[in-house]
Amino acid sequence: MNGAERLISTAAGGGVEVCFANPGTTEMPLVLALDRVGGIRAVLCLHENVCTGAADGYARLARKPALTLLHLGPGLANGLANLHNARRARSPVVNVIGDHASWHVSADPPLAMDIETAARPVSDWQRHIASPAAIASAMQAALAAATSRRGRVATLVFPHDFQQAAEVPAAPVQPPEPFPEPDAAVIERAAARLRRGGPACLFLGGLALWGEGLAVAGRIARRSGAELLGEVGFARMETGRGLPRVARLPYFPEQAQEIFDRFETVILCGARQPVSFFGYGHLPSRYLSGHPGALTIAGADDDAVGALQRLADALGAEAPWQGSAPEPPEPPRGPLDLDRLAAAIVRHLPEDAVVVLTAVSSAAPFSQLAAAARPHTQIALTGGAIGEGTALALGAALARPDARVLHLEADGSAAYLPQALWSQAREGLPVTTVICANRAYRILQIELARAGIDAPGEQTRRLTELGRPPIDWVAVARGFGVPGRTVETAEELTAALEGAAASDGPFVIEARLP
Amino acid sequence: MNGAERLISTAAGGGVEVCFANPGTTEMPLVLALDRVGGIRAVLCLHENVCTGAADGYARLARKPALTLLHLGPGLANGLANLHNARRARSPVVNVIGDHASWHVSADPPLAMDIETAARPVSDWQRHIASPAAIASAMQAALAAATSRRGRVATLVFPHDFQQAAEVPAAPVQPPEPFPEPDAAVIERAAARLRRGGPACLFLGGLALWGEGLAVAGRIARRSGAELLGEVGFARMETGRGLPRVARLPYFPEQAQEIFDRFETVILCGARQPVSFFGYGHLPSRYLSGHPGALTIAGADDDAVGALQRLADALGAEAPWQGSAPEPPEPPRGPLDLDRLAAAIVRHLPEDAVVVLTAVSSAAPFSQLAAAARPHTQIALTGGAIGEGTALALGAALARPDARVLHLEADGSAAYLPQALWSQAREGLPVTTVICANRAYRILQIELARAGIDAPGEQTRRLTELGRPPIDWVAVARGFGVPGRTVETAEELTAALEGAAASDGPFVIEARLP
Repeated sequence: MNGAERLISTAAGGGVEVCFANPGTTEMPLVLALDRVGGIRAVLCLHENVCTGAADGYARLARKPALTLLHLGPGLANGLANLHNARRARSPVVNVIGDHASWHVSADPPLAMDIETAARPVSDWQRHIASPAAIASAMQAALAAATSRRGRVATLVFPHDFQQAAEVPAAPVQPPEPFPEPDAAVIERAAARLRRGGPACLFLGGLALWGEGLAVAGRIARRSGAELLGEVGFARMETGRGLPRVARLPYFPEQAQEIFDRFETVILCGARQPVSFFGYGHLPSRYLSGHPGALTIAGADDDAVGALQRLADALGAEAPWQGSAPEPPEPPRGPLDLDRLAAAIVRHLPEDAVVVLTAVSSAAPFSQLAAAARPHTQIALTGGAIGEGTALALGAALARPDARVLHLEADGSAAYLPQALWSQAREGLPVTTVICANRAYRILQIELARAGIDAPGEQTRRLTELGRPPIDWVAVARGFGVPGRTVETAEELTAALEGAAASDGPFVIEARLP
Repeated sequence: MNGAERLISTAAGGGVEVCFANPGTTEMPLVLALDRVGGIRAVLCLHENVCTGAADGYARLARKPALTLLHLGPGLANGLANLHNARRARSPVVNVIGDHASWHVSADPPLAMDIETAARPVSDWQRHIASPAAIASAMQAALAAATSRRGRVATLVFPHDFQQAAEVPAAPVQPPEPFPEPDAAVIERAAARLRRGGPACLFLGGLALWGEGLAVAGRIARRSGAELLGEVGFARMETGRGLPRVARLPYFPEQAQEIFDRFETVILCGARQPVSFFGYGHLPSRYLSGHPGALTIAGADDDAVGALQRLADALGAEAPWQGSAPEPPEPPRGPLDLDRLAAAIVRHLPEDAVVVLTAVSSAAPFSQLAAAARPHTQIALTGGAIGEGTALALGAALARPDARVLHLEADGSAAYLPQALWSQAREGLPVTTVICANRAYRILQIELARAGIDAPGEQTRRLTELGRPPIDWVAVARGFGVPGRTVETAEELTAALEGAAASDGPFVIEARLP
């Protein structure tokens, strides 16, 4: 095997099944190796931020490492924003970046850029492959890093000449870093607090928001009476009728602070210390700074499921969660607004669907209603870098071929990576994208109002609205090979959602909102 | 003035007239300051790489510093690839990046990223504003850096709380770094070589390819018989009937090397040492390594015009360039191919048009024919990071409101930043985009053929072609507010070019190519 084939073979042996790629000349040996080695499905993305966002979405749902293949420094640069999101999501992602031939770098050719420095802000682990002999061990180390604890972003820089080196040897598998054992004393303190009674909540993130973690959290809630609260920018969450009910923390700090202040006890599990998205002079950064009853049984990188299980054992919390299933909303009628849009989606969502929740100002009513839907999985924006949704949906659909993916998107965000729709079409993926077209960066208009700016000047208005000219999302989607329609009423939206779900492929719904 | 107003006021005082912006919450004081201070036109871009690419295009043609306004680390990250191109172009660009409030950073909120590290690979100069008192001097220093010598990329990180600081003082203007004096001894050696005779060329880049530089190069060519050769990835070039004729260096190294090997004397002026785009094992990186007659009178950052003037003086080269004006091609007829496409554009180009030349494999015939067109200005891809074209065209049109901009683009590149078309539509700019739709990353298919891969496997084919599904560029453009049409023959292309030029706004032509 040559160097490229060895790297691909090592990745396939380590559980990699999909590679999101936008290769160039310096990656062609790796492209050829994908054919020669086999076992990894290559998905062409027309922009590198589609590669990295799709890898993030895939890794969150498949819980297998996702591979990206990027072209030199500029290709990596284009993918950085969604690697930032992937890193915040603790997604196991391995980036392979071709570099110029090792002997060519000193000529400083046009595409040369300091790849290592560019990678650093978004990589938990990175390595430049320094010789052909180091190829297999570098990929083994990258796989181990990516799959350590909750998951990490690992970046490998692979010179073109080493990709072409002959007879490159294999290397042994390297073990990922396991979770440390949960701290028994802290868990006993948390149990004691819950036994004592008084208003309490579990603040959940990461692995505590789905699967076994969520089920155990539900048992603890039933036993102790604690409420369940989830982080705003969760990587993955399950919700719907019959599942333990988790309230999503509000986005704005006044509301979030008010919620935390209601509880005497706040037990953090799988979540970071919650902080405000932005700093406002009259509010603290950290909602729990100085809170006397806050206690962390598992941080964002810790074994949240194990910690919850131990806490449940300490409390004797054996009975599964039970709660009144919220009633699904009535069929919405009339001109669309955010409440009607949320109701139509909640009524429509098929069981086990995946919801990609990247709308910013338009998502709150849906988040509040989602517990009334059939059980489904949500993934959200973890790092706040907008525009990831179309790519997340691409990756999510590849990770969950059985599921319909419903992507609830904003128009400001959707304008970032429309070309991801092309990859959805090429791969024939069942993704329904609902674009909340309010023709504004509404969140910025809200921030202006919060700051007391009632009559912004012309330049400010032009920098916060998207209506001049209006974007025709159905035309954009059709251009990239995806059919679509525009809806203005709840009835039209319901019909469009049902029509989209009846097809095998992607569909875009432009929902016109006030 | 508050901090934001002081920064904007300092920028306006330093010659900044346009700001390419995609602001977020942490930049809202700067947005408000654009209204309150006045003098700078804000242009909303729907992706940060549109901001930075447009700033690059604007700065190359206006020769004034361009401002970008980007949101935190992820916003900068999205704009890095075109800052790489801007840096290679020596474009005077000042990036202003909002940061979290200084007291909020340690909370590590979701959007926090190591901005300084991310900026380093693309910034010739950068600074984090550390206090309100430092705001004005930081912007003065950024303007000085950006306008030093040929031009530079300068990056300022501006915390949100300092933007809101009250009564922020002004600071004195700082002088940019001037060009060093050309080296008289080297110029005399160059003059001696040219006097001696034998096959000689001037290899020109930067300021030597347009305006006074090109005129003086033409006088030297006439006097000495030297040929004029231009770099592949030029920032700006003038060509057309009556102008000194400069051959553009070919992209592939075998052809480029063959050309240099024909000359006994190669005098570099305003250009870097020419190198191969990529390293191929059988060819050297540097075309002139070991060339006995290569001599640099001005490097890429030096005073190319001054060096040429001194060389012209030494040679007594006073008479302007004179050459046989190449005949314009016959009106092309029949199904489109690259030659007919080039001929149609060359015949159509209005005098003083700006051509944005970012097609990769499709541009060579046009480059060869362009000297037969009416005199016009070209700008090309300097750093090889594809996808900049739609943004370059946006910036070019704002810098040259009198000119029609003709953007010759590839379909692989055009898929990067289609949302730049929206900004072209909003600003009402006369940009005609011709997309060479061969439905492939043709350059990669050529590289595979060069490597002897005649029958690539299925994954390789899928990673190098764009036809499944085909992209409907007219629909994409319409979606972003720009009219367009598809053409399949030279006659249709000619009619479409004329129709586009008759309108005031942007137009997209999808040219279907084999």
